[in-house]
Amino acid sequence: MSSSNPLRDPADRRLPRIAGPSGLVIFGVTGDLSRKKLMPAVYDLANRGLLPPGFSLVGFARREWANEDFAQEVHDSVKEHARTPFREEVWQQLVQGMRFVQGTFDDDDSFERLRETIGELDKAQGTGGNFAFYLSVPPSAFPVVIRQLKKHGLADQSSGSWRRAVIEKPFGHDLKSAEELNTTVEEVFAPDQVFRIDHYLGKETVQNILALRFANQMFEPIWNRSFVDHVQITMAEDIGIGGRAGYYDGIGAARDVIQNHLLQLMALTAMEEPASFDADALAAEKTKVLGAVKLPQDLGENTVRGQYAEGWQGGEKAVGYLQEDGIDPKSKTDTYAAIKVEVDNRRWAGVPFYLRTGKRLGRRVTEIAVVFQRAPHSPFDHTATEELGQNAIVFRVQPDEGITVRFGSKVPGTSMEIRDVSMDFAYGESFTESSPEAYERLILDVLLGDSNLFPRTEEVELSWKILDPIEEYWDKHGKPAQYPSGTWGPVEADEMLKRDGRSWRRP
Amino acid sequence: MSSSNPLRDPADRRLPRIAGPSGLVIFGVTGDLSRKKLMPAVYDLANRGLLPPGFSLVGFARREWANEDFAQEVHDSVKEHARTPFREEVWQQLVQGMRFVQGTFDDDDSFERLRETIGELDKAQGTGGNFAFYLSVPPSAFPVVIRQLKKHGLADQSSGSWRRAVIEKPFGHDLKSAEELNTTVEEVFAPDQVFRIDHYLGKETVQNILALRFANQMFEPIWNRSFVDHVQITMAEDIGIGGRAGYYDGIGAARDVIQNHLLQLMALTAMEEPASFDADALAAEKTKVLGAVKLPQDLGENTVRGQYAEGWQGGEKAVGYLQEDGIDPKSKTDTYAAIKVEVDNRRWAGVPFYLRTGKRLGRRVTEIAVVFQRAPHSPFDHTATEELGQNAIVFRVQPDEGITVRFGSKVPGTSMEIRDVSMDFAYGESFTESSPEAYERLILDVLLGDSNLFPRTEEVELSWKILDPIEEYWDKHGKPAQYPSGTWGPVEADEMLKRDGRSWRRP
Repeated sequence: MSSSNPLRDPADRRLPRIAGPSGLVIFGVTGDLSRKKLMPAVYDLANRGLLPPGFSLVGFARREWANEDFAQEVHDSVKEHARTPFREEVWQQLVQGMRFVQGTFDDDDSFERLRETIGELDKAQGTGGNFAFYLSVPPSAFPVVIRQLKKHGLADQSSGSWRRAVIEKPFGHDLKSAEELNTTVEEVFAPDQVFRIDHYLGKETVQNILALRFANQMFEPIWNRSFVDHVQITMAEDIGIGGRAGYYDGIGAARDVIQNHLLQLMALTAMEEPASFDADALAAEKTKVLGAVKLPQDLGENTVRGQYAEGWQGGEKAVGYLQEDGIDPKSKTDTYAAIKVEVDNRRWAGVPFYLRTGKRLGRRVTEIAVVFQRAPHSPFDHTATEELGQNAIVFRVQPDEGITVRFGSKVPGTSMEIRDVSMDFAYGESFTESSPEAYERLILDVLLGDSNLFPRTEEVELSWKILDPIEEYWDKHGKPAQYPSGTWGPVEADEMLKRDGRSWRRP
Repeated sequence: MSSSNPLRDPADRRLPRIAGPSGLVIFGVTGDLSRKKLMPAVYDLANRGLLPPGFSLVGFARREWANEDFAQEVHDSVKEHARTPFREEVWQQLVQGMRFVQGTFDDDDSFERLRETIGELDKAQGTGGNFAFYLSVPPSAFPVVIRQLKKHGLADQSSGSWRRAVIEKPFGHDLKSAEELNTTVEEVFAPDQVFRIDHYLGKETVQNILALRFANQMFEPIWNRSFVDHVQITMAEDIGIGGRAGYYDGIGAARDVIQNHLLQLMALTAMEEPASFDADALAAEKTKVLGAVKLPQDLGENTVRGQYAEGWQGGEKAVGYLQEDGIDPKSKTDTYAAIKVEVDNRRWAGVPFYLRTGKRLGRRVTEIAVVFQRAPHSPFDHTATEELGQNAIVFRVQPDEGITVRFGSKVPGTSMEIRDVSMDFAYGESFTESSPEAYERLILDVLLGDSNLFPRTEEVELSWKILDPIEEYWDKHGKPAQYPSGTWGPVEADEMLKRDGRSWRRP
């Protein structure tokens, strides 16, 4: 784990961001997220030399495991899911700090054992009392775990060490429940101890929105209502709800994706330049955008929800949402949601932001498309520009991470004919470095206390303020439109843009 | 030659630009230009269905050829140099209209025979008296040919048919000689009968500068002194003077390339948007740019000329310019020239345009690079942007025609590090249509009377006004700096930009 570690990013080699003495406690360690994302991310960070030598990992769950069983679980998860190669010496060092605490969330004895384990690790591993608690648990378990942490002194920083809480979405179900959750959390943790994970913010391409906008001179001058016609933000999944019926039904696409991921992407796309990338400055700018969001008067015309019907998923017949196991056949839960909002400030007034997300769509893709107005005047014959569309800058968040710029070029030939062409920047081709997983970035940030990429209380609450009126409108009016699985959502969504003289990109 | 001709450009299929009844007379038909460019271009136009069925081609030269010999020459040239496949039926139609007139420029009988030939073609081929005269002759022969055309009534349009003169550079040697030449030409031809060939303007990528700038919305807002740091226009050749000692010595790189090609490229890059692509509107805008050019006070600091010395050309040892056959060993002719100018108007004031050209440079490339200022403010740590250069939009005129955009992107990794990356648009990859040769485009334009792509008298004279003071300064001060063949020119050129805190691109 020396500074010449070849797996370390070049940027990290020059200016290492290495976590100091610390450990991570995962609640819900037997869950999918832990096995597929958190454990591999911890190993990858260790492998890249970004964790301290005595770093400790504590699992907490009901399962009757010994420390060795837990270590074996982590081992298997790392072998299967880690991004970087398995190196025995890294593993041997990491396994020294692994502990398992068997228990339930409402059991005081379990939390006492957790407190003792942490104390023991401080001595054995030199973690210095610095621990992050990762709540990879169902929303209903949040309050009890948070309160237990307080009761057993685990959130207490008075000794000079730090304690942090990492929480996963959903951050509530609407504004009211989000406020309740925030109240609960803030009874125990100060705002700077709380890290809300929006794993989209850990993605390279999302962070690159900021680099692209503010490190360059070319883009910011056209990034406003004078030149932008509209913005489309899409997160499309090709799969259905899978085994998540219990979680998903009653939540739906808008709450699951728009409230957090898409509104965060919108905030990064629309925000003013912060004076620095200090977490406060960044949060202030994102908050300004979310606070400036204006919903259209007519929510019936400017929002669409859908539910996937029978159709296709990856070449195979797939059942509709209402036929999925565990779903109430009368469910009104949206598996597709599209909304139009405006950011009502000097930069963006009058520019619609169209946000859409859905399951069982044509393909898996997340992108932000900034679509520009047509040129105000064309010196060309009108026949020359018949096939010319609008300029666009598209951030491809996933897959094929990169940027596409669409513009008009002369078609070779002895006449002047202009047609759309594309320029492309692909991460995979331009950099030999592979992108860290979002969770690597975010866990490291938690250990470093760097909250840049974590939405704050105000952002979460403002996002619910945007979504609540829409959910209320939907509750009172009709039900989701059906769309065949494998298509690009209900026709109502196409009509929504058509009324504005626009159309959705087919990404 | 029907309208469903598969070789015709898609744009031409929709809005055909087909020449009406006409013919072309080439003076100097035995020369290189004629054989390598003009004859193949005529065939390619015929093959694409853009010439009238009775199109006629008349060669004029001293050589003792019969019509059949001339036709055979054209045939061989087409077979060797044409861009499109050889099709016997096209050839058979084209050959019907081929004639050869044997003669010398000062011989009245020859021009009488030419007049008779044209009259005969009008009857046999239906050319309607419409003829263009292509003067592919040495500058010294311009006046005599022009005067002979007048004397024998060949420039006369009074019958309602058209007559046009096509002239190749050099358009004089300085302002005075250019004015003399223009006077000679305009004694015989009205301005709209004269077509000055700058074959760079016939290139697809050059025409695309206009499409890119004015058909799109993304570029024009940043195309000015508020955002552009400077512009570099480069035409580099990897070869030496070859067998052209007689033409080149005493002319040099600045007169041969900067005066016409580079100043025209600069005019297209810098000009305001014309109200239409009407030839007058376009010429007016280019003329405004050339008229606004301001030379630096200190020509010693802001111009550089060089002469290639011994070195390498394409992996082989090459002699210096002064050792070339036919070159005076004391010659002060420049084979490299770099100048800095400003376009002194509201859009460009204070933005330097660096123009350079040279022979025996690192590689053959022509490009226009618009280099942007750094972002006015960086919210990033200064270490994050250590490896970040300036944004640039580069028009690659040749080879690999296309556009490159350089900008900063986040390097994958858990730190924020920003590095230059490129986005690329390549003609060859984006279009299945292959680009017509510049001469195809330009000859067709002559036959159509479309003078958009031809520099006018005022442009030529303004260009000499820019160059004359530089040439005069060079005449009086020192001699060209030597640079080894195969390098990127004299160190003085690097120093010139270094004094401005800039550096040449290595294309």
